[in-house]
Formats: sequence, structure tokens, C-alpha cells
Amino acid sequence: MESLMMDRPLQLKSLLWRAERLFGHKQIITRCDGGYRRYSYTEYGRRVRRLADALAALGIGAGDRVGTLGWNTDQHYEAYFAVPCMGAVLHTINTRFSPEQIAYVIGHAGDRVLLVSPEQLPVLEQIRDRLSSVKAFVVFGGGRPPETGLEPVYGYEELLADADENVEFPDLDENSPAGMCYSSGTTGDPKGVVYSHRSTVLHALMLCLHGSIGVAERETYLLVTPMSHVNSWGMPYACALQGATLVLPGVQPRPHHYLEAIEHARVSVCVAAVTVGLLMRHELESGHRAYDLESLHTLWLGGQAPPVSEMRWWQRVHGVHVCQGWGMTEASPLLTFTSLTSQFADLDDDQRFHRLGTQGQPMPLVEIKLVDDHDRELPWDGQHAGEILVRAPWVARAYYHNPRSADSFGGGWFRTGDVGVIDQSGYLSLVDRVKDLIKSGGEWISSVDLENALMGHPAVREAAVVATPDPVWLERPVAVVAADSPLTSDELTAFLRAKFPKFWLPDRFVFVEEVPKTGVGKFDKKLLRQQLTAEHNGDTRTAP
Amino acid sequence: MESLMMDRPLQLKSLLWRAERLFGHKQIITRCDGGYRRYSYTEYGRRVRRLADALAALGIGAGDRVGTLGWNTDQHYEAYFAVPCMGAVLHTINTRFSPEQIAYVIGHAGDRVLLVSPEQLPVLEQIRDRLSSVKAFVVFGGGRPPETGLEPVYGYEELLADADENVEFPDLDENSPAGMCYSSGTTGDPKGVVYSHRSTVLHALMLCLHGSIGVAERETYLLVTPMSHVNSWGMPYACALQGATLVLPGVQPRPHHYLEAIEHARVSVCVAAVTVGLLMRHELESGHRAYDLESLHTLWLGGQAPPVSEMRWWQRVHGVHVCQGWGMTEASPLLTFTSLTSQFADLDDDQRFHRLGTQGQPMPLVEIKLVDDHDRELPWDGQHAGEILVRAPWVARAYYHNPRSADSFGGGWFRTGDVGVIDQSGYLSLVDRVKDLIKSGGEWISSVDLENALMGHPAVREAAVVATPDPVWLERPVAVVAADSPLTSDELTAFLRAKFPKFWLPDRFVFVEEVPKTGVGKFDKKLLRQQLTAEHNGDTRTAP
Repeated sequence: MESLMMDRPLQLKSLLWRAERLFGHKQIITRCDGGYRRYSYTEYGRRVRRLADALAALGIGAGDRVGTLGWNTDQHYEAYFAVPCMGAVLHTINTRFSPEQIAYVIGHAGDRVLLVSPEQLPVLEQIRDRLSSVKAFVVFGGGRPPETGLEPVYGYEELLADADENVEFPDLDENSPAGMCYSSGTTGDPKGVVYSHRSTVLHALMLCLHGSIGVAERETYLLVTPMSHVNSWGMPYACALQGATLVLPGVQPRPHHYLEAIEHARVSVCVAAVTVGLLMRHELESGHRAYDLESLHTLWLGGQAPPVSEMRWWQRVHGVHVCQGWGMTEASPLLTFTSLTSQFADLDDDQRFHRLGTQGQPMPLVEIKLVDDHDRELPWDGQHAGEILVRAPWVARAYYHNPRSADSFGGGWFRTGDVGVIDQSGYLSLVDRVKDLIKSGGEWISSVDLENALMGHPAVREAAVVATPDPVWLERPVAVVAADSPLTSDELTAFLRAKFPKFWLPDRFVFVEEVPKTGVGKFDKKLLRQQLTAEHNGDTRTAP
Repeated sequence: MESLMMDRPLQLKSLLWRAERLFGHKQIITRCDGGYRRYSYTEYGRRVRRLADALAALGIGAGDRVGTLGWNTDQHYEAYFAVPCMGAVLHTINTRFSPEQIAYVIGHAGDRVLLVSPEQLPVLEQIRDRLSSVKAFVVFGGGRPPETGLEPVYGYEELLADADENVEFPDLDENSPAGMCYSSGTTGDPKGVVYSHRSTVLHALMLCLHGSIGVAERETYLLVTPMSHVNSWGMPYACALQGATLVLPGVQPRPHHYLEAIEHARVSVCVAAVTVGLLMRHELESGHRAYDLESLHTLWLGGQAPPVSEMRWWQRVHGVHVCQGWGMTEASPLLTFTSLTSQFADLDDDQRFHRLGTQGQPMPLVEIKLVDDHDRELPWDGQHAGEILVRAPWVARAYYHNPRSADSFGGGWFRTGDVGVIDQSGYLSLVDRVKDLIKSGGEWISSVDLENALMGHPAVREAAVVATPDPVWLERPVAVVAADSPLTSDELTAFLRAKFPKFWLPDRFVFVEEVPKTGVGKFDKKLLRQQLTAEHNGDTRTAP
């Protein structure tokens, strides 16, 4: 027998339909020169349709890629629905990529139209010889675009002014491509992930569930996490689905802009990278100005695990709950989320923050397993550390046109490259990256735990811990530390000693002005390992 | 280009996986003789696998139908996952059906095994000649089954005792059939709806979203709405997904059992038919016994629209929020849900209850439209009433083996047979059923509004309003009223006069002991119309 349910596809236009029909009066607020620009979801829907009409006039059809190089603005957000709803593919290019990487991903994706923030034009001019797929450049912002050697070039608002706001979006196969993001990964060129309407809709639903960040109509969300990086963690789609008020920090925002936006728009939930949380704290502690953060109750920090010391500070000083999840470009991105289940309702403060410091439980429809070096499944006992394999309807099954896909995707699971332990209640704690892993004398050492502890020291601003070669123990940890005031290795060793087994203590502390970072703002451990290993081998030229 | 996301099917075993792996310690509590039976989701998972193994041993394979005639118990709940996860189809038979209807649906579905509560055995014996598809009867409860002429017959616990608790469930196509329910509809034999794994999983996710009932891990749910009626509104699946504590009222529950269960298990959310809400209120007001309802904060009343007077009473007397949605067997069932969006946060009490008295906004992925008699779409202006057409991934596209499907399903939409208005904010208010509709002198009269108003009178227990023929106005409303103390037509007319246009006031009030009801406990308006029309035509033998 067969089931007799409607074959209605999961498609992004259903989310737009809700935003327009149920929440048309709700607002999208974008920081701009001299203040904030506001319009309603009703107006948003009209502009989305105009953009789709304009792109069609530029020759964009089903399956064509439209690239964006933009900030978190209302215009960029318009592309989030216009492009996939018309059947094309939204390729949000990471603005932190090098010009070389930007040239590579535009060519690899075959972008036909680029929507570009004016500040990015010089980068594109620099790589113009390599943009042969691009048939038109559309410049975000108002008025006529600045002078540029690129052509043909159009002003975003000019283009919309002449377009039709009554375009009807087609019904699409739910497995149609909707978006693309490239992950800079650990080695080689960025790797492309192609999201579908189905995966994007399901991921948006997940974000609205009790037990995840729980996007709700009544909340006001400040999206600091870039729209150019894994779809701002899917939040733009979830917010439209629920009709939540959306606050976008605009062009070239600084930490004080985030705090001003929270105050101005009565933001209740802020979504940002861990680094941004730290920068906001520094701004608050600097005393430059007082901010009214009364409306803010939740700060979702991601990209890497937020230090527990940060979580405690926000709770204590501002009554703000810091939460986290775990994910990656290949997973849309969210796989787990930290929400305390009822069994942990009565924990004392230390135990509570210990648990909030984990990466949480798998989201619905996410399956997860830990495996050892021989791919044997490991138990969830809070002890065994293994590589984390995942599968879910919003996880990639391959990279786009990439022969190295086989390394990461096999047997129906995605090898995340992250190493973790899972306890009996299903809470995941990341231990390390497979390639960052420190195994000393046959025992694991968690560089993440050491880093978090070091960043809990009042004078430490940043700390990265990596493995260096050791003749006896094979690997030993070395800490690279950026401090706000003078510190010695002995002080830090003493500081760590109470918390960790003796063999965990770093053999050496290297003091630096700033820990080097990758294009997406994470500690560049690959570079640190290279530098420290070179130094170890007697080549001091590349020491950090 | 194609998307490159994993092709992971939406299947019910993913929900069971969560219940077992993340929430294994949480409890399922069933009222039984002399108290409550409790076990954990870990134990539940083992028993689900045993049941699947036992059913396989009885010859059940992929696509085979397993019927149930049971109460809301842990055993019945075990079938909810065991049957679909093994690839078979769970046919929950409405225990309120007549023996004739039960014989019809078992034969029509072709059930191969029946899981039966002992009290239902006499019904089956009565129709045994018509059960040729059934190869085995399994009797719920403990120990050996009672003496019966049916064969072969097995005791449920005996069967599980010998079975394997380590069965692995197969990966299934998400469009595989998972469940069946028959709707008694308005005319003729019950009509079968076949749910898929996909539709059931998506519906369960919807129930966990902010803005719907929002099933959450921390809550404790009392499921009064029968597991034999539209899958207890999908709540058993949503509760497993979130690992919520589940309280099941067991065999032949009475209103005081619900209240005792709330007190005993510290229930926070109760899900029940409107009638049950009324009966619980009567029990509370009777003063037989005091109940501690401190833990209860939400009462989801459904099946028909709860009278606003009831909603107010629960809020005022017990601080309990009454919420509602709108749905039907063909829609799994939920289509809309009433949650007050932020624009209504500052309403005064009257306005708030007025809005809570609507059927709410469409759930995510549900599309809805109003059409007139010529299928022209009507505006959402709070004025135009039309038939409501819906489509969603959890709405049926046809009835099972039923030539009358074409009447309800056409052009990709399901004709719900309900008439409503929708306001600019997307809140639906049901006006009537297409066939209950009162159109008097070219104007609509809402029988639902009149009924709600009448049931707000302190002496009125039940009230149904139906159309009767009228030579001048074509149709006129007549009210059938069951009262707790003597009442006159003049008193009720005076009571209604302040609230409604003069032409809305019923021409006549018929006082009865009890308003006749359909098999699922709704007012039997079809019967009332027949009786009143017959009476109108001079045949008084069938007057109510």
C-alpha cells in the first residue's frame, strides 16, 4: 500500500508566505549612516519580488548561481529569499576570504550575477580577469554605484525601481538547490556545499523548536553572525518563518554598534561569534559609554566554544544567558544545541555552567556517533573520545565538484573532523579537532579545555594550545597566549595546576600580541603548529 | 545543478532514537487499577522492539495493517512506534464507532492483526464473521487473555516476554505508510486517511515549535484525547521527540481520574476534547473532593471550539491558559493554532479572550485559502466568509480506496467543509460547517457564535444551533438547549439580544435532556436538522 498524503514540497517560499501573510506588520531594522532604516515584512516581500524580477531580466534562470559579497543588511536579506524562490542558487561569499579565494569560489561556483557591497569593488577589480562567468555586477546601497572598471554594473535600488513587485514564485522540487557556501576547511582550496530547499526549510524549523535557540515571534533578534558565513546560521530563514523582528547591524559594524542596536531596537536575543561576545564585553568594561541592555536575555555565541568564564560574566553582570551549539558549513550549520533538560534544573552554579559549557544534545533528526581510529563505534559514557560522525537531512553528502569529497563522506555519514565525548544524557563535549588532537603518552589532552581555562585568567585575552613534537611523549602541549598585562609562564602554570592533571600542563608558554586567526576568525592552529614545529627544529624565522 | 544534501528520510524511528538516547530516564506514567504504572523511555524502547519482533513472528511485514482498539495506555503507545518503525501500518480504530462501523473499517483497511483492549472483545465477537482479514488477536492488559470465541488469541505480555528487545528497525522511504485513521465524516461509511512517516514526523515537529502547543522536554503532558482518534492529535510522537513526561489516563477513565492524574503526576499541560474540559469543570465545581491543580498551566481543548466562557473560567479560577487549534483527521490533525502574537500583548481581557476564541494562525508549511461558492478566492479582511481550502505536507490527497475522494480533493487542495473568516493578521474564525451553514435573507448567521453565547449562560449546559427551513428567509436558526435549571425561550432571547443582530436570534428554543452527539462526541447537527425539519414538516415522531 502507499501513503495518501499531499506531495507538498518543503520550499522557502512557504516561509516567505508566512512572513507576508501572518506577520506583514513586523519589522526589519538595519543600521545605516546616521541611524536605522526600518520597513515591514509586507514591504520586504514586495522588494523580494522586485529583486527576483530584476534578476530574471539580467538573465538569471533556474539553477543559476547569484553570488553575494555583502554585510548584514536588508538588501542582502532580500537576496536570501528572492534568489532561491525564483529557482536560482544563492551563493553567499565569505567576505573574509582572500582575493585569491574569492576569485576561486566565484569561478568554481560559476556565479552569473554578483550582488556586491561597494567596499568590495576594489577586491573584484583586482581579480577581474578571473570573473569570466559573471555577466553583471549589482552594487548594494542607494543611488548610482561608484566608478568602477567592472561592467556591466547596476545600482541595486535603480534595478528594483523598475521591477515588478507582483512576481509569482514557482513551485519547486524540494531537492532543488537553494544556496551555496564554501568552507575554507583545513587544507587547500575552499570546498563548496550546496543546500536544498528541503534542507534549508527543515533547518529553519529546527531553530524554532523548544530545546534549540527557539526562534519565536515575540523576540527581537540581532544577527551579528555574518550573512556571508553559513547563512548567518540559518537565522534569517527562521526569523521569517516566525515573523520575528530582525535587527541587522549594517555595513562595517564595530562592537559599540552592536550594543547601540541592542539598546535602540530593544533586542532580546543576539547571535554572534564568540570573539564578538568578547569584544562587546571589552566595550562594556571600557566604560566609554553606558548601554541599556535591559531587553537582552540571550546571547547565542558560536563558531567555537565560548569560554565558561565568558558565560558566567554575562550572566552575573547583565543577567544574560549565553548558549551555544555545534555545527559547521557542511551541516547548515547546526547539529547540537545546549539546553538544560529538566534533570539538571537543580544544579548548583558550577555544575550548571559546566553543563552549559558542553556543546549540548543532537537536534531532532540529527544522528550522531563516535568512532575510534578503526571506525568502531564508541560508547556514550562521558569517557571515550572519538571522531564525531553525523547524518541528518541538512548535512552535505558531497562537496561541489570536488574529488576530495570521498575523504569526508563515506558510508552515508559525514566525518566532521571533530573529536568529542558524549555522556549518558547525550551531551556532546568537543575535545579537539582530529588534526589538533594532543595525545601524550597514550592519553588524550584537550587543548580546548586548556584554552578555556587560560582564557578564564583575568589577564589573558586569547589563548591557543597546540601539540608540538616530543621525543618521549610523542606530543606535548604548548600554549600561545595574548595577555593584557605582563604574565609569566610560572604564574600560568600555577593557575592551571589546580584544574588539570600534571601531564596536561603546557610545556611552554609563548607570549604574543595576538593569536593568528583563519579567514573566519578561528585560531589558526595549523599555522601555529607549523611555526612551533619549525622553531622546535631550529628554524626560528617563522616563530609567532 | 543539483543540491548535495544527504537524502536522509524523515522517519519515525528518528523520534524513538531521541527518546531512547537522549531522554532514556524520562517517564511514561499510566493510570491502572489501584494506582499508576511507570517506566522509562529506555524500558519503553525495549518493549517497542519486543512488540515489533512479536508482530513479525505473527507474520506482519512491510505495509501490513495492524489495527488497535485501545485506551490511552503504555501498551497502546508501544504500538505507536513498533508498528510503523517495522514498516507496517498502525490503524488506530475509533472505539466510539458502532460495531457496524468497526467491522467496516477493519475489513476496508484489511487489518491482519488486532491489538485489542479486553472490553472490546464482545464487540469483535459480535462481528466475528466479518473479520476474515484478521489472522491474530492480541489482548492488551496483563496475564492470560479472557475466554473468547475469537482465535488465535494471545496475551500482550506473554507475546512480549518471548520476543527480542534488540530488533533493529530498517531505513524506510519517508513516503511509506505509517498510520491510518478513519473519519466518520458527515455521510456514509467512514473514510480512511493514510499517513506517511514524512507527514507524521513533520506534524510532530510542528507541535514542538514556538507558536504552537510547543511540546517541550520540561513539561508533563496528560493525553486525554484518545489514541484511537487522530493519533491523540500527534502528541504521542511529539512527546517522544522531545522526551517529555507522558501521563496516560488508562482504561475507562472518568473526569475525576483526569484531575487525580494531574495532581499525582504534577501535570503541566492537559490535552483534551472540549467536552472533557466541561466535565472536569463540573467535577471541580461539585466539590466532591479538592484537587491540587497547582502544576497545571495549560489546557489544550479541541475537537470543536471551546466556549470563551470556559476559557475565562479556567483562567480566573485555576490560572490555567486554555488554547485551541483547528484541524481534522484528514490533516493529521493540526492546521492552525491560537497563540497571541506580540501585537496583541497589551489587549484588555475582553479583547484577549475574543482573540483566544479564534482558531488562530496557520502552522508553518500550511497554506490556506478562503473561497466563495464559485471557488473564487476571498480576501482576509475579517468580513468575507468562505469555505476553507488547505494544503500542507500532512494533509491527505485522497481517501483510501474511496471513489468519493474527488469531492474533497481537487486542484491540489483539500476542501475542509468548514466555513470561516480570516482577518488581516491571519487569524481564522470558524463560522460553520458548509452543510451547517445558516444563510438567512442572504446574510450569514454563525451557529457557532450563537452556541458559544448560549453556553455562556450560567444555566445552559449544552446548546446546538441548526438551520430549519423558512418560507421567507429560506433558513432560520433553531436552538436545541440542555439546561441545568428551568429556563424559558424569552429569557434566552433576552440573554442573546444584547450580543447579536436581531435577525440572528433563534426563532425557537427546544429544551432537551442532552444534545445528541456523533460517535466522536460532537453535536450531531445532521440528526438535529433531520429531526427539526421532519417536525417542521408535521412529522413529530422524531423530534429530539
